[in-house]
Amino acid sequence: LSGAASAQAPDPLPSWNDGATKTAIVDFVTRTTTTGGPDFVAMGDRIATFDNDGTLWSEQPMYFQAAFILDRIKTLAKDHPEWKEQQPFKGVLEGDIEAVMATGNQGLGELLAASSTGMSVEEFAAVVKDWIQTAKHPRFDRPYVELVFQPMLELLAYLRANGYQTFIVSGGGIEFMRPWVEGVYGIPPQQVVGSSGKTEFKLDGDKPEILKLPGIEFVDDGPGKPVGINRFIGKRPVFAAGNSDGDLQMLQWTTLNTGPRMGIIIHHTDAKREWAYDRDSHFGRLDKALDEAPKRGWVVVDMKNDWKIIYPFEK
Amino acid sequence: LSGAASAQAPDPLPSWNDGATKTAIVDFVTRTTTTGGPDFVAMGDRIATFDNDGTLWSEQPMYFQAAFILDRIKTLAKDHPEWKEQQPFKGVLEGDIEAVMATGNQGLGELLAASSTGMSVEEFAAVVKDWIQTAKHPRFDRPYVELVFQPMLELLAYLRANGYQTFIVSGGGIEFMRPWVEGVYGIPPQQVVGSSGKTEFKLDGDKPEILKLPGIEFVDDGPGKPVGINRFIGKRPVFAAGNSDGDLQMLQWTTLNTGPRMGIIIHHTDAKREWAYDRDSHFGRLDKALDEAPKRGWVVVDMKNDWKIIYPFEK
Ligand SMILES: [Ca+2]
Ligand SMILES: [Ca+2]
Repeated sequence: LSGAASAQAPDPLPSWNDGATKTAIVDFVTRTTTTGGPDFVAMGDRIATFDNDGTLWSEQPMYFQAAFILDRIKTLAKDHPEWKEQQPFKGVLEGDIEAVMATGNQGLGELLAASSTGMSVEEFAAVVKDWIQTAKHPRFDRPYVELVFQPMLELLAYLRANGYQTFIVSGGGIEFMRPWVEGVYGIPPQQVVGSSGKTEFKLDGDKPEILKLPGIEFVDDGPGKPVGINRFIGKRPVFAAGNSDGDLQMLQWTTLNTGPRMGIIIHHTDAKREWAYDRDSHFGRLDKALDEAPKRGWVVVDMKNDWKIIYPFEK
Repeated sequence: LSGAASAQAPDPLPSWNDGATKTAIVDFVTRTTTTGGPDFVAMGDRIATFDNDGTLWSEQPMYFQAAFILDRIKTLAKDHPEWKEQQPFKGVLEGDIEAVMATGNQGLGELLAASSTGMSVEEFAAVVKDWIQTAKHPRFDRPYVELVFQPMLELLAYLRANGYQTFIVSGGGIEFMRPWVEGVYGIPPQQVVGSSGKTEFKLDGDKPEILKLPGIEFVDDGPGKPVGINRFIGKRPVFAAGNSDGDLQMLQWTTLNTGPRMGIIIHHTDAKREWAYDRDSHFGRLDKALDEAPKRGWVVVDMKNDWKIIYPFEK
């Protein structure tokens, strides 16, 4: 019934070209929502998890959160004259990204801490909201939130229309995503799983606050993704989408299970409209998961051929 | 409109006696859901958080999870002959609770670790499900899940019927609650925030697992509750209910904010039908939060006088 009805309805995925990829998605959703069918999944178990960077929006020439952190360091620099002589801050201020990268994980951790600690989570959310509305991507000269993938917006809406709960499970910072993902993706804060820094509760008179502290609490990447899914959601997804080796374990945890399961990998193949990269990229390296996809039956989305348009502004 | 309609409808809180407490609850829900009213709260912001032990079910003569851990140690003892001579295990096996308590937090941590580590989260969930169906409370000779509070079940349903999302925010173990709270309270796993142990993802051939490790990851109690709310939900609740000083900061975080807010404290005042305790109790000590309630406008529920019945089986 459900299948027959959707055949008559308007195409729920108009930005996807017809072909094996689109057919596999529609077939999966139809099977798992057909009451009485062998692959029916109960409403409460329709959990779909999506990576963010490179899966729901672009991630080149660097993760957009990295651009946020660099902008933030530049803004804060006027109160930190010592940064002019001190890496990794010096490199940021001089635009010398190689010097920044040379400081390694410790340097990057210092930038992250400097960009967000000593504020309350509500103050930080306000900073993010301001940046997301004003900063522009260097290549497209558009706000970063315009660089979300129109076909993925359609997929999110299609899944939700079929009773799926859509979650973000991202290596990005949870406090960086929550201020804007509801408006952009229709995903509320309580359905966002991400990396996080330590926080602490303080009551100052009659004013309670949650303060951001230095130090990483949880890295929601690689094997951390199934751990985060288990911690935050407490159910195994039946559908997962990612784009890099950081999603490998999420895809394994989702699909290597009984019952109908779907794993999707977004393969960046369109240098003209977006970017083309996989095994050698600094951001969003896709190597092991690409090798494992055929064996596991994961659907590899070829952005160039499977997507009619990439971004909403192309409509 | 909403208020007029509910005046005609069947009483949504039939196990609550008429009086100031019930009126305050109905008034709050009516105000926050009256479209166009000054206290209207948008659907997505209707977040209600509930402590579990002593708020949604009983917690005497000890936390029910403690009874689970003790039963589990007894079951596992046949594979650990050394426990007969080794505290805190010896005390558990001999029923010498004072000897157990004398080992302090370290001893209790050893019991917790022994009762759950070395298993996958799915295996642990099966153990919990089995226990919750078979173990019986010593005083009532009934399964522990029958010792939930009927008035609170009604309150949860009433809030949900009015567009509230109900969350558990408990010091209890998240993996201990999730296997049964959906069936008992109607709260799905992704709306359960609790204390947690460390876990790790493993892929064994084609079989992925999340293994429980020794070591505490997060204590969702006291100042940990607002931290957990921020981490898992990412929005400040407009409604919170608790019963002990472990809920003090959750109540502060919820109510010390602009807009309509409600804080509720369940005061255990009925020694005959349940238990009577507050400032001196080992489990569920209520002291500072009781002192702070009048100043903050928190509604203190007097179980003896506000509740017609305590448990569903009294119906
Ligand atoms: Ca990614
Ligand atoms: Ca409690």
